[in-house]
Amino acid sequence: VDLAIKDTTLITFKDEGPSVIKNGAVGVEMDKICFVGKTEDLDEENYTKIIDGSDHVTMPGLIDAHIHSGLSLLRGTAQDVPEIEWMDKALGPIVKHLEKSDFITGSKLGILEGLRSGTTTFGEFTSDLDETIEKVHKPFGTRVVGAETINEIVDKKGDIYELESSDEQFQKADDLFDRYAQSDLIDITYGPQALDMVTLETLRKIKHEADEYDRCIHMHVAQGGRERKQIKSRYGCSTVEKLKEEEILQDNLLAAHCHDTTDQEKKTIVESETNMVGCPSSIATIDGIVPPIHRFLSLGGNACLGTDQIPGNGAHNIFREMRTISLLSKCLDGDPTALPAWKCLKIATKNGAKALGLKDKIGSLEEGKKADLITVDLKNTNLSPSVQRPFRNIIPNLVYSSTGMEVDNVFINGRKVLRDGKFISIDEERIKKEAEERAKKVLSEAEESWRRSDSKMVEYERDDLL
Amino acid sequence: VDLAIKDTTLITFKDEGPSVIKNGAVGVEMDKICFVGKTEDLDEENYTKIIDGSDHVTMPGLIDAHIHSGLSLLRGTAQDVPEIEWMDKALGPIVKHLEKSDFITGSKLGILEGLRSGTTTFGEFTSDLDETIEKVHKPFGTRVVGAETINEIVDKKGDIYELESSDEQFQKADDLFDRYAQSDLIDITYGPQALDMVTLETLRKIKHEADEYDRCIHMHVAQGGRERKQIKSRYGCSTVEKLKEEEILQDNLLAAHCHDTTDQEKKTIVESETNMVGCPSSIATIDGIVPPIHRFLSLGGNACLGTDQIPGNGAHNIFREMRTISLLSKCLDGDPTALPAWKCLKIATKNGAKALGLKDKIGSLEEGKKADLITVDLKNTNLSPSVQRPFRNIIPNLVYSSTGMEVDNVFINGRKVLRDGKFISIDEERIKKEAEERAKKVLSEAEESWRRSDSKMVEYERDDLL
Repeated sequence: VDLAIKDTTLITFKDEGPSVIKNGAVGVEMDKICFVGKTEDLDEENYTKIIDGSDHVTMPGLIDAHIHSGLSLLRGTAQDVPEIEWMDKALGPIVKHLEKSDFITGSKLGILEGLRSGTTTFGEFTSDLDETIEKVHKPFGTRVVGAETINEIVDKKGDIYELESSDEQFQKADDLFDRYAQSDLIDITYGPQALDMVTLETLRKIKHEADEYDRCIHMHVAQGGRERKQIKSRYGCSTVEKLKEEEILQDNLLAAHCHDTTDQEKKTIVESETNMVGCPSSIATIDGIVPPIHRFLSLGGNACLGTDQIPGNGAHNIFREMRTISLLSKCLDGDPTALPAWKCLKIATKNGAKALGLKDKIGSLEEGKKADLITVDLKNTNLSPSVQRPFRNIIPNLVYSSTGMEVDNVFINGRKVLRDGKFISIDEERIKKEAEERAKKVLSEAEESWRRSDSKMVEYERDDLL
Repeated sequence: VDLAIKDTTLITFKDEGPSVIKNGAVGVEMDKICFVGKTEDLDEENYTKIIDGSDHVTMPGLIDAHIHSGLSLLRGTAQDVPEIEWMDKALGPIVKHLEKSDFITGSKLGILEGLRSGTTTFGEFTSDLDETIEKVHKPFGTRVVGAETINEIVDKKGDIYELESSDEQFQKADDLFDRYAQSDLIDITYGPQALDMVTLETLRKIKHEADEYDRCIHMHVAQGGRERKQIKSRYGCSTVEKLKEEEILQDNLLAAHCHDTTDQEKKTIVESETNMVGCPSSIATIDGIVPPIHRFLSLGGNACLGTDQIPGNGAHNIFREMRTISLLSKCLDGDPTALPAWKCLKIATKNGAKALGLKDKIGSLEEGKKADLITVDLKNTNLSPSVQRPFRNIIPNLVYSSTGMEVDNVFINGRKVLRDGKFISIDEERIKKEAEERAKKVLSEAEESWRRSDSKMVEYERDDLL
């Protein structure tokens, strides 16, 4: 047997709570976890390599269930602007100038940042998904649940977007299921962009196929006023009502954002067993809105965390998201008991696994599950001191004190990706160099259209505030 | 002349905005800044040592204007509990078991964390301030503006705290002004704990002395319901009304928290030129409240940032506080333009300096000011890519993307404290070891009274959720 980590504080999440094992050990055979228990029960002779896990937490890898990693070249280029401007005036004029290869370079940078801070699974949502998988996730060895974007808008100018059903897009997405059927690290979901951006015809086809072949759907749901207006005009009801009518709301759906929903609609979503992913830093920064993760959990639903995209969020770091959603929820409710630390850790692991349709494979440390795990250095100043008696302060510290940089080892599918805080086979410096060169080029090419947009970002620049 | 950093992106804050100088240079002679400008105008031959500042931001050291560093042994021991429980039931039973030396060990750990993340000035609020100064701030070489706590509660049992004017406490605090009068790095302010915790007699004495000798007062103001009730019973009005009546509200006052204030009271505070310090992570975690920093700024007041104490906040890291207050303010107002990045950076530097009575000494990079400055590595993955044209993404990235660990050099009063992310003369490992040993001991001794308190923390522990 390959590898064991011993004498460590294991956070397993095998049951409802964190199910911590003190002086714990975890054994890995090939891609799977073969032992979870006390160190004293570990049969050390069976293992080729034993890692000393003392002064470390060993826990499931974090799950970023909603990420558009390809935009990472544009860090810091669109924030502090009115919500209405963010996409069309601030980000849009720059995105137009990204070449296909820039999305790949961006994705490398973004996934690098996620891995460094302990994320092992990415719910990637992008066009040209196969490119991102082949050029980023496969070489990096990350676990990915990818959605190929289906967006059928042909004209955005009118009051209501003009849509046209695209068999080509559907087919491109559909083909990926077969292509990656045998892959252990890659799963595919359907990715209809949002109810206002796809035809009912396509949506129904997706639903039919998903039900038929037991596939998941990942979709932006109830993102705000513009969508609401579109859906009201087109269908005379709300997004959630229409999705319910079409029977899209069910346990194979991962609904992103969901902030433009009434209490009743949240209940409807939860009762349908639809999974919800919220992106705290992104939505707080772009919309000034607290993602309703806490509401969905209170209603008994499954909710988890995502980082969306770097422009707006600023980072792909799930440790940050745990703390951010806890503080935002506490302030929204005026209730400091809202989203306690252990729940934040759970939504970032076990809940994420369920949301991505991988609850039997990952999300907790259990024998037979995939060996996606991370260690966190409790001796790091940011997490000191750590105590076990009369109570453990470790989980609160992971959530409220960690920056993510305390992660020192990352294993995915039994393979080590990060050792002592350093990447083993990813050339970090080269990726950063390439990202910087391309970002400079893209922004320089975008200058004219960016200035013409006259967004609040342009105003900041003019006023010398950037 | 001693030292210059050249070819760097200087964020100077010499005027209203960040006043960035591209390809900038800063020269340091002894404890002072002797040159700020373009690298091409730097007379390199005059300097003994020239540091290459390319791919770095060089900016004023951050200012943590309100910190109780002594409680840092208790990281992760009190959070996710109802506000009413936090001090008395969750934290109190443990604090009781801290020995005097534990506050010093805790302070070392807390200040270490602040320094590592770029904080150069600390608005320390503590009992036995001289011990903290002599054993922590002096050996560490930090700039400190210290308030010796004056708390005159003799009995907390009744509906209204019983107070007794303490000449001893006043004298102890008062003596520190003379003791540190000649120190360049140490300033003293008065530290009446709060209006409900000191007698009017003492408060008037403090005001008289402060006015007479041009000294500052640092005080918790309008912290919440319990204070409001006390003040209403005792004086028949609110804290702000009483402080106004006593003419305590003026530009030499630094008022901490101020969240339990009406709009009119905020206006009153601002009009009096009182300075406000908010502690976003602390107050969000402990109270579920957004500190009204944004409100005070909107009214034209001076507001800045603090980290309060580690239990609750989780860290002493002003980079975190910048991002946290921006996101919280955006969500409170539903306005993504609230507290844009440059303003967050300003409240963490220039505003903090003014609030602590040091506006002529620190807070911006200007010739003649003290050389308190930090460099931040823009090549760090978390901050990549960084661009300068057609606009800079650097300030947004410092606020929304940095973890604080990207700070690599820290200078205070012209002396280097951190080099390439490592402390030069502080034994970090030893401090952590001592902190861990003592934390274990204190918590073990506190176990019985902690359990008896039956706080929500005890419930979490019983339910195996910690």
